[in-house]
Amino acid sequence: MALIVQKYGGTSVANPERIRKVADRVARFHKAGHQIVVVVSAMSGETDKLIKLAKEVQATPDPRELDVVIATGEQVTIGLTAMALMNIGIPAVSYTGLQVRILTDEAHTKARILDIDQHNMRADLDAGKVVVVAGFQGVNAAGHITTLGRGGSDTTGVALAAALSADECQIYTDVDGVYTTDPRVVPEARRLETITFEEMLEMASMGSKVLQIRSVEFAGKYKVKLRVLSSFEDKNDGTLITFEEDRKMEQPIISGIAFNRDEAKLSILGVPDRPGIAYSILGPIGEANIDVDMIIQNTSVDGLTDFSFTVHRNEFDKAMGIANNQIKPAIQARDVHGDNKICKVSLVGVGMRTHAGVASKMFSTLAHENINIQMISTSEIKTSVVIDEKYMELAVRSLHRAFELDGPLAS
Amino acid sequence: MALIVQKYGGTSVANPERIRKVADRVARFHKAGHQIVVVVSAMSGETDKLIKLAKEVQATPDPRELDVVIATGEQVTIGLTAMALMNIGIPAVSYTGLQVRILTDEAHTKARILDIDQHNMRADLDAGKVVVVAGFQGVNAAGHITTLGRGGSDTTGVALAAALSADECQIYTDVDGVYTTDPRVVPEARRLETITFEEMLEMASMGSKVLQIRSVEFAGKYKVKLRVLSSFEDKNDGTLITFEEDRKMEQPIISGIAFNRDEAKLSILGVPDRPGIAYSILGPIGEANIDVDMIIQNTSVDGLTDFSFTVHRNEFDKAMGIANNQIKPAIQARDVHGDNKICKVSLVGVGMRTHAGVASKMFSTLAHENINIQMISTSEIKTSVVIDEKYMELAVRSLHRAFELDGPLAS
Repeated sequence: MALIVQKYGGTSVANPERIRKVADRVARFHKAGHQIVVVVSAMSGETDKLIKLAKEVQATPDPRELDVVIATGEQVTIGLTAMALMNIGIPAVSYTGLQVRILTDEAHTKARILDIDQHNMRADLDAGKVVVVAGFQGVNAAGHITTLGRGGSDTTGVALAAALSADECQIYTDVDGVYTTDPRVVPEARRLETITFEEMLEMASMGSKVLQIRSVEFAGKYKVKLRVLSSFEDKNDGTLITFEEDRKMEQPIISGIAFNRDEAKLSILGVPDRPGIAYSILGPIGEANIDVDMIIQNTSVDGLTDFSFTVHRNEFDKAMGIANNQIKPAIQARDVHGDNKICKVSLVGVGMRTHAGVASKMFSTLAHENINIQMISTSEIKTSVVIDEKYMELAVRSLHRAFELDGPLAS
Repeated sequence: MALIVQKYGGTSVANPERIRKVADRVARFHKAGHQIVVVVSAMSGETDKLIKLAKEVQATPDPRELDVVIATGEQVTIGLTAMALMNIGIPAVSYTGLQVRILTDEAHTKARILDIDQHNMRADLDAGKVVVVAGFQGVNAAGHITTLGRGGSDTTGVALAAALSADECQIYTDVDGVYTTDPRVVPEARRLETITFEEMLEMASMGSKVLQIRSVEFAGKYKVKLRVLSSFEDKNDGTLITFEEDRKMEQPIISGIAFNRDEAKLSILGVPDRPGIAYSILGPIGEANIDVDMIIQNTSVDGLTDFSFTVHRNEFDKAMGIANNQIKPAIQARDVHGDNKICKVSLVGVGMRTHAGVASKMFSTLAHENINIQMISTSEIKTSVVIDEKYMELAVRSLHRAFELDGPLAS
């Protein structure tokens, strides 16, 4: 008998029919003798609908009250899921985040979990019930409803698994695992049977939207065995996210290719290369609450250098305004260039640490396709390049082939 | 400075625009220096939508889980209402029933309020905030979410007014008060400036759907000053519901005419008139959880009598089945007749107590219109008749005129 936390996302509970299918799967695990905690998201589209409604009332909704409104999405789903289980004879009981007492900090709309009260859940599990918990939400010390931010239901699942020392946390989603890259771009992409937490973090942060990044961090920190599976078919065991020390086999050099078009690039040209200049540029950007991803500064020539960074594409216009009107005159830069038609492509793999030549093979592959590289940044297990967005698919496909990721589906 | 509880129903908060209008009214009272507790229902249609969804998952939804699901309707509205207030500069904070701690009994979907914790509300009111509370819901001693049943938001409003010793409980609705009868049937119907609790109870129980009957009972019991007003126009002070001892003026003989088509009639014919026979008939009906309204038994002739009663029209078929298959053979009755094309028309008025002749004037008015009376029942302040439903409008209009209820609108 194992204790398993199963998390189902919005598309898995999008309507009564799908909720009944979730109940059928949970019932199979329950009948096999396992204790099951189910974490559900809001039905797909519901959270956006509620946010839209809130914005019609108040252009920038008060965060405390926004949390009160959007927490209802998951509350509907837990009730329906518990009903679906009872409907097929499985005893079940639902809890909101407040009812479990998933204690969070005060940061409405992006709260962090501090503590989870196991009391109610343990009693119900021991009584043979399936416990259905609302994802995405908690309560702060003052008793106010909080939410964990986008994708927070994954975090709820992992946090419950950690608190209950569950044997496994299963994340059911609309894909059947983590792939070497997006199969919509590269039809030859393969499902990975395992991936390390570090690789998963790099893949997730690049927009391979399988798992919310915070949940992966959380799982790594608390050593929760995490598995990504399809909620629509049971044909395989998905992808298990492992700790590096668990990997027995020879490491592949790279595990996957991540990419996104969410960024835009700004270059400040002809910048006097003196101490404090990076802060003079990034200070005003940070003060405007704009997150910066890649930062590149070239070696200076004649005391002048070029400074480039990327921001989210949604904040490109705002960042360009600040660069032109604040930064450029303040540091007497020569010019500001911006480009929001870029994409970022990253090779990810823990094997990269011990294999030289990944970067050079990447660059030669792209050169062979006549793709110009605009920016490069590297970390221990990731090598990223920024290129013109029109070459994105071509770049990803060539790299997928070059690094021998193409292949038959894993068993 | 007064403490006022204002309750807004589903049509008053049906969309963001109407919620903003509610906020505008609340702001006027707040700026006049009053402390305001606002109780809101779910946006109109939401509760029905949620019940429908639940029934798609489980034909007879588990009551505990149904409450979890439908309680979200009001939770959305409290958040939006608090936002709308803050949007115009009025400090506000929302609470669900669980967060206030509106303690109820265990009866899911029809819970009764046992106690209300004033602590949070008092602190917020004293800090100058408007407190927005979800109607219709509470929490039981085990921490499970409960709901109070249809129209429960009125009860929440009155219960909060009683707990906080509010100066007035204002029920805002889509009509501007209580009328002598339904103005859609009798255009000459007049708004009453005052009505007694007893009269209101009789009017409400007959389906003059202005106020939920339990809330009126509650207000009577705790001496809460209750006022019904329009949430769409501010042209008058609505109808104040008074205690009989407060009435200064000469009583009108009758205050209003209530009517409904919700009932159906069953007659058990040729019943042996012996002790216990009423129980033999109504026992099986009660065991099937069918509520009975009017009960009539005529004097017996030759040891046989006829026994008639009315049930809700939705339960007519079920009641007929029981009458034919259980009751008739058990007591050896001659026959069972049923009629679901009936209506009930009632004259209501505390003045009836001291004025003879109300019933005879009622019967002669109906006779003059050739309307046959099928059943009669009387109480201290009400005289009801059952007639063929096709005469309903004619009966109500004739009686409205005969009892001199027609007239100009009250100021």
